[in-house]
Amino acid sequence: MAPPVAMALILGSLVALAVLLRRWLGRGRLYRIIFEADTPAGKGFDVVLLLAIVASVLSVVLESDPRLRVRYMVPFGILEWGFTLLFGLEYVLRLLCVGQPLRYATSFYGVVDLVAILPTFLGLILPGSQSFLVVRILRLLRVFRILKLGEYLKESELLWQALVASRRKILVFLLTIITLVIVIGALMFLIEGEAGGFVSIPVGIYWAVVTITTVGYGDVAPVTPLGRFVASAVMLLGYSIIAVPTGILSVGLRDAHRQRRQSGRVCRRCGCTDHDSDARFCKACGAGL
Amino acid sequence: MAPPVAMALILGSLVALAVLLRRWLGRGRLYRIIFEADTPAGKGFDVVLLLAIVASVLSVVLESDPRLRVRYMVPFGILEWGFTLLFGLEYVLRLLCVGQPLRYATSFYGVVDLVAILPTFLGLILPGSQSFLVVRILRLLRVFRILKLGEYLKESELLWQALVASRRKILVFLLTIITLVIVIGALMFLIEGEAGGFVSIPVGIYWAVVTITTVGYGDVAPVTPLGRFVASAVMLLGYSIIAVPTGILSVGLRDAHRQRRQSGRVCRRCGCTDHDSDARFCKACGAGL
Amino acid sequence: MAPPVAMALILGSLVALAVLLRRWLGRGRLYRIIFEADTPAGKGFDVVLLLAIVASVLSVVLESDPRLRVRYMVPFGILEWGFTLLFGLEYVLRLLCVGQPLRYATSFYGVVDLVAILPTFLGLILPGSQSFLVVRILRLLRVFRILKLGEYLKESELLWQALVASRRKILVFLLTIITLVIVIGALMFLIEGEAGGFVSIPVGIYWAVVTITTVGYGDVAPVTPLGRFVASAVMLLGYSIIAVPTGILSVGLRDAHRQRRQSGRVCRRCGCTDHDSDARFCKACGAGL
Amino acid sequence: MAPPVAMALILGSLVALAVLLRRWLGRGRLYRIIFEADTPAGKGFDVVLLLAIVASVLSVVLESDPRLRVRYMVPFGILEWGFTLLFGLEYVLRLLCVGQPLRYATSFYGVVDLVAILPTFLGLILPGSQSFLVVRILRLLRVFRILKLGEYLKESELLWQALVASRRKILVFLLTIITLVIVIGALMFLIEGEAGGFVSIPVGIYWAVVTITTVGYGDVAPVTPLGRFVASAVMLLGYSIIAVPTGILSVGLRDAHRQRRQSGRVCRRCGCTDHDSDARFCKACGAGL
Repeated sequence: MAPPVAMALILGSLVALAVLLRRWLGRGRLYRIIFEADTPAGKGFDVVLLLAIVASVLSVVLESDPRLRVRYMVPFGILEWGFTLLFGLEYVLRLLCVGQPLRYATSFYGVVDLVAILPTFLGLILPGSQSFLVVRILRLLRVFRILKLGEYLKESELLWQALVASRRKILVFLLTIITLVIVIGALMFLIEGEAGGFVSIPVGIYWAVVTITTVGYGDVAPVTPLGRFVASAVMLLGYSIIAVPTGILSVGLRDAHRQRRQSGRVCRRCGCTDHDSDARFCKACGAGL
Repeated sequence: MAPPVAMALILGSLVALAVLLRRWLGRGRLYRIIFEADTPAGKGFDVVLLLAIVASVLSVVLESDPRLRVRYMVPFGILEWGFTLLFGLEYVLRLLCVGQPLRYATSFYGVVDLVAILPTFLGLILPGSQSFLVVRILRLLRVFRILKLGEYLKESELLWQALVASRRKILVFLLTIITLVIVIGALMFLIEGEAGGFVSIPVGIYWAVVTITTVGYGDVAPVTPLGRFVASAVMLLGYSIIAVPTGILSVGLRDAHRQRRQSGRVCRRCGCTDHDSDARFCKACGAGL
Repeated sequence: MAPPVAMALILGSLVALAVLLRRWLGRGRLYRIIFEADTPAGKGFDVVLLLAIVASVLSVVLESDPRLRVRYMVPFGILEWGFTLLFGLEYVLRLLCVGQPLRYATSFYGVVDLVAILPTFLGLILPGSQSFLVVRILRLLRVFRILKLGEYLKESELLWQALVASRRKILVFLLTIITLVIVIGALMFLIEGEAGGFVSIPVGIYWAVVTITTVGYGDVAPVTPLGRFVASAVMLLGYSIIAVPTGILSVGLRDAHRQRRQSGRVCRRCGCTDHDSDARFCKACGAGL
Repeated sequence: MAPPVAMALILGSLVALAVLLRRWLGRGRLYRIIFEADTPAGKGFDVVLLLAIVASVLSVVLESDPRLRVRYMVPFGILEWGFTLLFGLEYVLRLLCVGQPLRYATSFYGVVDLVAILPTFLGLILPGSQSFLVVRILRLLRVFRILKLGEYLKESELLWQALVASRRKILVFLLTIITLVIVIGALMFLIEGEAGGFVSIPVGIYWAVVTITTVGYGDVAPVTPLGRFVASAVMLLGYSIIAVPTGILSVGLRDAHRQRRQSGRVCRRCGCTDHDSDARFCKACGAGL
């Protein structure tokens, strides 16, 4: 049986099954189960989905091991197709019960949901593309959102806010680092030559990144005295400027904290907003808060 | 002599000796010596125990060296059994003189005390399990508590408090890192293949962790130009986000400090608690503190 | 044709072309196009220059790869001479339309602009010096300035200000580190000898820098028990003092932030400047701000 | 000539020369030249001493290189003895012109000055001890103090103050790390065995330190899947707790800064000391400062 025929058959059955399920449960009830988590059925659906996502990612990760793949070829195949059909059915159901299917399909979560099932079908045509299935882990984001992890998201929002507020400083820092590693990479290529493995400037740049970030694999390392001297200076530099992103984020995080603490405390008389969380009177005009 | 018979004999002698000691010293006095440290005898007991713990851990660590084990087999055997009998006697004495033996036996310290002597007996049946004796080092925690290291514990409590207060941010951060390393590990497996040692996705994930934490062993390292380019980006990412836990903890530690400084300064009129350590009047209502 | 003759011919044509261009466009208009970015022509010139710089750096970096250099020798040669002539023409034009040519030629940007074209000419006499062309990346600094990246520069100024304010602490820290690595390097040379590759004190110092900055290549690593013990202590030391530059910069950055927030808020009655950004009255004398 | 005779001769000539110099210059003038730096002669002496120290350390470092030692044996010997005699003469002069010679000889600087000349004499009896001459670098500390680097020392005092104030937190942190690496080292020894080079628990502990500090040589690295999984967890742990010393020091440094800013601002009416640097009135009682 040719792959296109098989794919058409599989998709057809999925759509048919989804339509049947929608007729049986009703669109509103289906929507509450799939998209919301405030009913027992909705919560159960999310828990099952979360477990299925974790299990499917684990299966893809383990299948990549050559020995395991050869030994457990059939179980891995069954698992892969089982999860793909399950997620495929879920995707069609989401399309069927949501108000604006097109808007869902082009949203971030819609694209992730689609990308999570495509590689298995692609694998029929292009062998080896199954490893892309690991993107299924991004689906966890949706489940996190649904499971009412509100407190956790508030924290991550704080982090995000601090990162966004520091984005210009971070960009300037990254541009400086990139300029530095290109100049240092070229310098080391000139100094070391091929002795320590510095066969070209790109390799020198790779070495500079490995060194300045203090990763230090050692696959490329200077061997000449001058090269080692320059390398030592580069390391001390990297060691010193690691403080920069930390300092940036530290300040950003503190500001984000302060901002949250003060939001919603606006003086009705003068409009001043920068109040401590326990202040009772406006510090600018003395009116009660 | 079969191991079970030997174990029964040893345990019997330990219990008999412990009962004799309790009768000789009296239960209350024994309790003060073993559990408290405000008498000379109690302090002396704790110092001896501390030295015995350090010596026993050192002996286990050194015994693991193949050359030393072969050369000093008999002294190591004597040391191991000596410390085990000493800690065993201490454990039975603790059980005998404490008010609620069952509650002690199931407490954290009770379990650690038991686990610190079990591996030697297990070694009679399962050779090689002596290395677990290294858990004896956890017994030091008890000695630290007993030796009135109050100031030090207050500091570590402050650290602990900051970590607990930041637990949500830390969890979000760790989940983000885990998601990142899985996706990056799969990507590098696809890009590099077996050339640089990326034989499976788990190995790719291991590499991603080694790289993003800036450890960088170099046992698995990219060799293709594209792989090295992606690896450089991953390193710069890891270098930048190392600032996140630092920023988180820095803020948490500052808050913990501030909280301690302000605790116990409650306004009796309005209940406001956020006062500077040197304030004389409540900043919310103006009443004297 | 001898290199000097070729160089004279090339430079002559460049100057002739530049003079023609200045006559055609007029000096004022040329100045606005080259040095400013508030007209469409000026902006277009900067965008083209930015792309040319990035492309020329990329070409130098890729040309250093031995395989690529052999395979694409002619295109690389054309690119190198093309960019050199372009930047040469630009340099002569800048000299021709600026008010004080000598002051421009000796300024930072003037020197960078000259250094960006010299290595190609040097390559005619000294083969292999083309790799220095990578300094062209420093020309990006000018383009950043021109493209009105004001906000970004304000951020980097803040970073710079924090670094300058902390320069003494950073210098003391670096001197301490340098003293440490020399003493540790000599110590490890004495302990390890040639077993782990510690063939001389300079190598020991190189190892100490690699270790204390947590880079850790592993090309030189201790193998004796005593050496590994000392190395472990050095690592814990390096791990602990990495906090020092972070702490220094963190404080410096906070102070720089505070300073900016408060600048420009001077009390007209008493001259006090340290006001919160939302204060309405001077905190020292009570006068309105 | 036997070494003891040579040493007696050398020491005799040094003392004789020193006595002559003291008679010629006078004790008070000699003291001002050697110990102080406010006269042109004193400043010149310090600059020469600084250069001599740097040159002698450099000479010891370079001499340790086997190839350089063989090729330049005679110049290195002359340099070593020249610097030793120079520093020896200086040491005797310091003893002769200081008020309490014994107190100087037992002070930190006195011991460093002596230790800086001893290894050369020891080298006559014990060949190979010359490498200890590298301790001469500690003599730089004295020169730094003399050259009126007051501002720099104030900064390093601030760092030192922050470290001392955080000493308990740092100790608790180090004890936690040491406990962790012992337990992790034993665990990895049990999991990995000799496959990845984990031949004993000490080696496992060495690996744990290398990993948790993110140094990562790669000379010992896990190869089994379980070992790599545990190693990944250890790395993430090390990556997260690197924030702890930074957070500790950051808080300590801020407190030290604040303390300095506020020192010397004591209210004469109520004794309150925690004032901003620009406050004009005591914030506790309202009296003028």
